[in-house]
Amino acid sequence: MSNNYCVIMGGGIGSRFWPFSRQSKPKQFLDLLGVGKSLLQMTYDRFRKIIPKENIFIATNQLYIEEILKQLPELSESQILVEPTRRNTAPCVAYSTYRIHTIDPEANIVVAPSDHIILQEDIFLENIHAALNFVRENEALATLGIKPTRPETGYGYIQSDVEEIGNFKKVKTFTEKPDLELAKVFFAADEFYWNSGIFIWNVRTIMKAFHEHMPEVSARFDTGIELFNTPQESEFIASIFPYCPNISIDYGIMEKADNVYMLPAQFGWSDLGTWGALHELAVKDDNNNTTLKKNALYYESEGNIVAVPEGKLCVIQGLKDYIVAESGNALLICRRSDEQSIKQFVMDANLNFGEEFN
Amino acid sequence: MSNNYCVIMGGGIGSRFWPFSRQSKPKQFLDLLGVGKSLLQMTYDRFRKIIPKENIFIATNQLYIEEILKQLPELSESQILVEPTRRNTAPCVAYSTYRIHTIDPEANIVVAPSDHIILQEDIFLENIHAALNFVRENEALATLGIKPTRPETGYGYIQSDVEEIGNFKKVKTFTEKPDLELAKVFFAADEFYWNSGIFIWNVRTIMKAFHEHMPEVSARFDTGIELFNTPQESEFIASIFPYCPNISIDYGIMEKADNVYMLPAQFGWSDLGTWGALHELAVKDDNNNTTLKKNALYYESEGNIVAVPEGKLCVIQGLKDYIVAESGNALLICRRSDEQSIKQFVMDANLNFGEEFN
Repeated sequence: MSNNYCVIMGGGIGSRFWPFSRQSKPKQFLDLLGVGKSLLQMTYDRFRKIIPKENIFIATNQLYIEEILKQLPELSESQILVEPTRRNTAPCVAYSTYRIHTIDPEANIVVAPSDHIILQEDIFLENIHAALNFVRENEALATLGIKPTRPETGYGYIQSDVEEIGNFKKVKTFTEKPDLELAKVFFAADEFYWNSGIFIWNVRTIMKAFHEHMPEVSARFDTGIELFNTPQESEFIASIFPYCPNISIDYGIMEKADNVYMLPAQFGWSDLGTWGALHELAVKDDNNNTTLKKNALYYESEGNIVAVPEGKLCVIQGLKDYIVAESGNALLICRRSDEQSIKQFVMDANLNFGEEFN
Repeated sequence: MSNNYCVIMGGGIGSRFWPFSRQSKPKQFLDLLGVGKSLLQMTYDRFRKIIPKENIFIATNQLYIEEILKQLPELSESQILVEPTRRNTAPCVAYSTYRIHTIDPEANIVVAPSDHIILQEDIFLENIHAALNFVRENEALATLGIKPTRPETGYGYIQSDVEEIGNFKKVKTFTEKPDLELAKVFFAADEFYWNSGIFIWNVRTIMKAFHEHMPEVSARFDTGIELFNTPQESEFIASIFPYCPNISIDYGIMEKADNVYMLPAQFGWSDLGTWGALHELAVKDDNNNTTLKKNALYYESEGNIVAVPEGKLCVIQGLKDYIVAESGNALLICRRSDEQSIKQFVMDANLNFGEEFN
């Protein structure tokens, strides 16, 4: 039996891709690249190659249980870890830690987002394999650091230390998303890597880290430790989850722990967090237009991203560097350079016209 | 019993409003202004005030019979004059002439397009009433000439002569759509009027005009004159219609006849032939944006026309003077100044992606 486990975090909202991504069906459930599989399905299939299917868990909001079972029919419902309220990643990781600890106290776990793109899967899986071995042999919290290819301001960075164990570099600091000046400094320096948000650890190591760095969380989970993997689990989770702090695992543990190690990696990674990131990855025509999922006729147009439902025809004339996204009851047209405003647009839409446009 | 009749021509395709207007449902069947009635329904209701409902006929393509009966349920199917093939207005007028002549050889007929906008209905109806009286008393072909309010290049013009009968001016020439220079000359001169495409005549006068100016058409219709208003009529029409020349009544008769008179009129008329014409008539926000049939949020945007289906939300940012039109399986975004290219776009779409986008 394998001691390797995987937790895919699939509860995000992804409002930056509105209206293509909706609260009722966020981007991880969409085939944003038009390859015939959703981002979640691609993530699952990727891990499925090295981790037994019964050892894969999806952490998510209860809104998405049905969609997940539809997209991943070989999962049983018990493999979905339901978060009763949105509490960022730290409580979600705690939940998965306690559940898996009950099943297998020797478990080595990879925790990964559900909505990232990985182009070179073989290299990625080699890295994951190496990291699982590393955390089995070392009482360390591991992560994958992506070698930057540009001074990106949309990602957090990890600074590595000189100390190493094999290929794994000790982590000195995690940084927030930098401004462009700082991003250029990071890019020029050797020791900075993009924070992939992919973590690997042994279940005992992360359990210990919770007790050390987030005792207010582990104390709550400890009160019902005997209930995990029993019919009482979900009721217990519902009773403690709302009282957990709303913070990320990066902030709650990784930035504080002194046993964090990073494997430098390079496998064509994108968090696909913005339309711009999608444009970079997608196929483009001679005028740098990207057309997702449908037919388009472009006239005097360049640098656009067009995403509308399958079967729809777009005729675009005289547009340069715009996002055109249509889905369900909404149509968005905005400059690519202003895509950070999309969240605001969605809030305004919600305020003015109701939640059905979320 | 009234001798007054009306023929509404409702067989046009209206591709300049694509994709809002489709071959399967052209603009006359749409509520383009968002008033709760289609252009056809408004046209019918207008004439219904002065002409008995059984004296109103709709000439159309067989594709639209069902839609017309749905929109005008008080019509009987026999009031729809079905054109088996598209042959412009001259054969259509001939058909209506022969049918109505059989019903009432004293008939006075107004022939009008189904897709025009008339803002001052009372003045319009007074004009129609005057014209019906005029053609009963005079062997003349009458039309309404619209007093120009700008040097429009999108309309044909009528030049009036000095000769008059009452308020009706004899027509000297019909002109094609002018270029801007010529349109300015027409606008400055007193004797030029817009060609409204609305015609009024006694059935004997127009019948005589067909025999004189389009004998190749009347000869065909004469061969089955006893079949009009009988169960054999449609079979007969199907047998002769395809052999009729594909020309307009303006070109076939009005430009040639020497008994054409025009009533100068001014009742807030638009042929609603372009998005620009629609923009002019529609309600606009402070930034000159027109939003038809739905909700929109505009950011840094002005002078746009946005037409998408009811219930849809549009978020538009950073657009100036564009047309955004979405309907069914197509979305169009193009500069307002390039709207004359829409016909070309539709042809390209048809060629590249199939007729379902017509």
